[in-house]
Amino acid sequence: MKRPTIADIARRAGVSKGAVSYALNGQPGVSDATRRRIMAIADEIGFSPSSAARALSGANARAVGLALCRPARTLGIEPFFMELISGVEAELSARSYALTLQVVADPDAEIAVYRRWWGERRVDGVLLCDLRTDDRRVPVLEQLQLPAVVIGGPDGTGTLPGVWSDEAAALAETVEYLAALGHRRVARVGGLPELQHTRARTDAFHAVAARLGLDPADTVTVPSDYTGEDGARATRRLLSAARRPTAVIYDNDVMAIAGLSVAQEMGLAVPGDLSVVAWDDSPLCRLVRPPLTALSRDIPAYGGRAARLLLDAVAGARAAGVQTPAGHLTPRGSTAPPRTP
Amino acid sequence: MKRPTIADIARRAGVSKGAVSYALNGQPGVSDATRRRIMAIADEIGFSPSSAARALSGANARAVGLALCRPARTLGIEPFFMELISGVEAELSARSYALTLQVVADPDAEIAVYRRWWGERRVDGVLLCDLRTDDRRVPVLEQLQLPAVVIGGPDGTGTLPGVWSDEAAALAETVEYLAALGHRRVARVGGLPELQHTRARTDAFHAVAARLGLDPADTVTVPSDYTGEDGARATRRLLSAARRPTAVIYDNDVMAIAGLSVAQEMGLAVPGDLSVVAWDDSPLCRLVRPPLTALSRDIPAYGGRAARLLLDAVAGARAAGVQTPAGHLTPRGSTAPPRTP
Repeated sequence: MKRPTIADIARRAGVSKGAVSYALNGQPGVSDATRRRIMAIADEIGFSPSSAARALSGANARAVGLALCRPARTLGIEPFFMELISGVEAELSARSYALTLQVVADPDAEIAVYRRWWGERRVDGVLLCDLRTDDRRVPVLEQLQLPAVVIGGPDGTGTLPGVWSDEAAALAETVEYLAALGHRRVARVGGLPELQHTRARTDAFHAVAARLGLDPADTVTVPSDYTGEDGARATRRLLSAARRPTAVIYDNDVMAIAGLSVAQEMGLAVPGDLSVVAWDDSPLCRLVRPPLTALSRDIPAYGGRAARLLLDAVAGARAAGVQTPAGHLTPRGSTAPPRTP
Repeated sequence: MKRPTIADIARRAGVSKGAVSYALNGQPGVSDATRRRIMAIADEIGFSPSSAARALSGANARAVGLALCRPARTLGIEPFFMELISGVEAELSARSYALTLQVVADPDAEIAVYRRWWGERRVDGVLLCDLRTDDRRVPVLEQLQLPAVVIGGPDGTGTLPGVWSDEAAALAETVEYLAALGHRRVARVGGLPELQHTRARTDAFHAVAARLGLDPADTVTVPSDYTGEDGARATRRLLSAARRPTAVIYDNDVMAIAGLSVAQEMGLAVPGDLSVVAWDDSPLCRLVRPPLTALSRDIPAYGGRAARLLLDAVAGARAAGVQTPAGHLTPRGSTAPPRTP
């Protein structure tokens, strides 16, 4: 099957190739009736301008890039990225943009991908995930002048617009709730410490604990790599301490489920002996017993917002950062007053 | 920052643009020393030919398409697709191919995406997921002559090569194991009935049950949409029957976890009152208590194999289908002899 060309349309319509080109590009030079006839023929024979021809004529690649620097096996298990991508996708498909996805091994490889995408005009812009402290990717994208939106912020995004939510507010709501239930020893299994949002959460955690008068020695953050294995290890360490916590907040859902299993393995009742909170919420949190109290956000909407902002930037708008609603606490069966405060 | 051009290289090297073009394209007409110098300069200033120019010159788009026809929210929770994508990605990045991802609402939208990708020369080939019985997408891709590899098969792929594993062998191993433990009433919560691999599993399930002499009335398959909610509903229905099953095989991990929770909610012990098997295995299966017996396959390797086959097809090879290793049973704490056979 041969791809239909402008010449095919011209032949069918009995006009010149130039006339077809005018009609398809919305330029003057053909009558409205001819334009309508040409459009109908183009539609009928399945003509669409090749992306190569469009790109050379200065038009867009009509694709947006997303490079993910996470071990492939972690991506498989954590719902966050797939929910984010689904939200991005919904927005892009509505505007006939494609998503170009690339999993990279490290930040250097990620930077090389941005340079290649830019050099090859393969994407019109990129979404930057997992913002780090002093992120080397930000100045590279600024220098390339490749439209980019950071999923994260508001700090550390340079001149790039970010889409973020208030991590401190979500954390304060959670710790205040646990303290109101009577918890005095609250621990946290945090994410990768080099990520900006992990740091924001850790700072907020210790600030709110101090404000509520919780003993700093009992308010610890253990870092993790987001895998269930690491979450289980961190939980065993926390629950083996002489003054073990009566509540643990986990930086993802998978680790919270692992924590639930470790409590069971160590003979501790949830929520009687240990309260468990997951961040972010996901359908997984409702599948386990007891169902997990969690910080809920609309992740697909978050991804959609970032995609819209990026398409604005691609269209030449000077996009400003956007704050999205903070996560809110959804209490379920995994939190209760501690049996032995 | 301006994208470097062939003219920039020519100026730096003190040669003509034609000489640069010869050197970069590996054509004769320049000395080896000049070629090396030109390559070094191109590398130094970050030159890469635009994908648009390459495509017009008849070269490839260097991208592979994957359209997923699943509700976005299901994609977020099921590890299978993200693991598959990570395997595809690993293979593609090693050969500097991009993955173009699109989530579509229904098969018609998916077919429209293939036509658009083909018309715009946006991808060099596609991976086809979730093969259906009498799949309308297969003849469309055959007609477009767009290189394609089916993730599934071997039946129903038309002239397209498939990458599949033996569903019947995996199912037989599982049912035989459960029967050896003493189970006589084995049920299955299957996936979407219109999918080819669901049908293959269902046929194999009833064939092996008959061969082992299990009562057909006690060997039922309940369809599902792969969500935890649906898995929970199906489990409640099965466990509320007068002659309830003593073992259930689930067509994904998320539903098996939901089934575990329903057993707990209904006061049934796992594995004493109910044995649970998940298919496919995932890290989630090891996180819950008891950890789930599961059918294990290397999903990223499966995706990688499909990507390699597709790149062979793009390169013009007449690719034949490939059978990958069948899932094998990994027994964990969720299966045991039934307390009351």
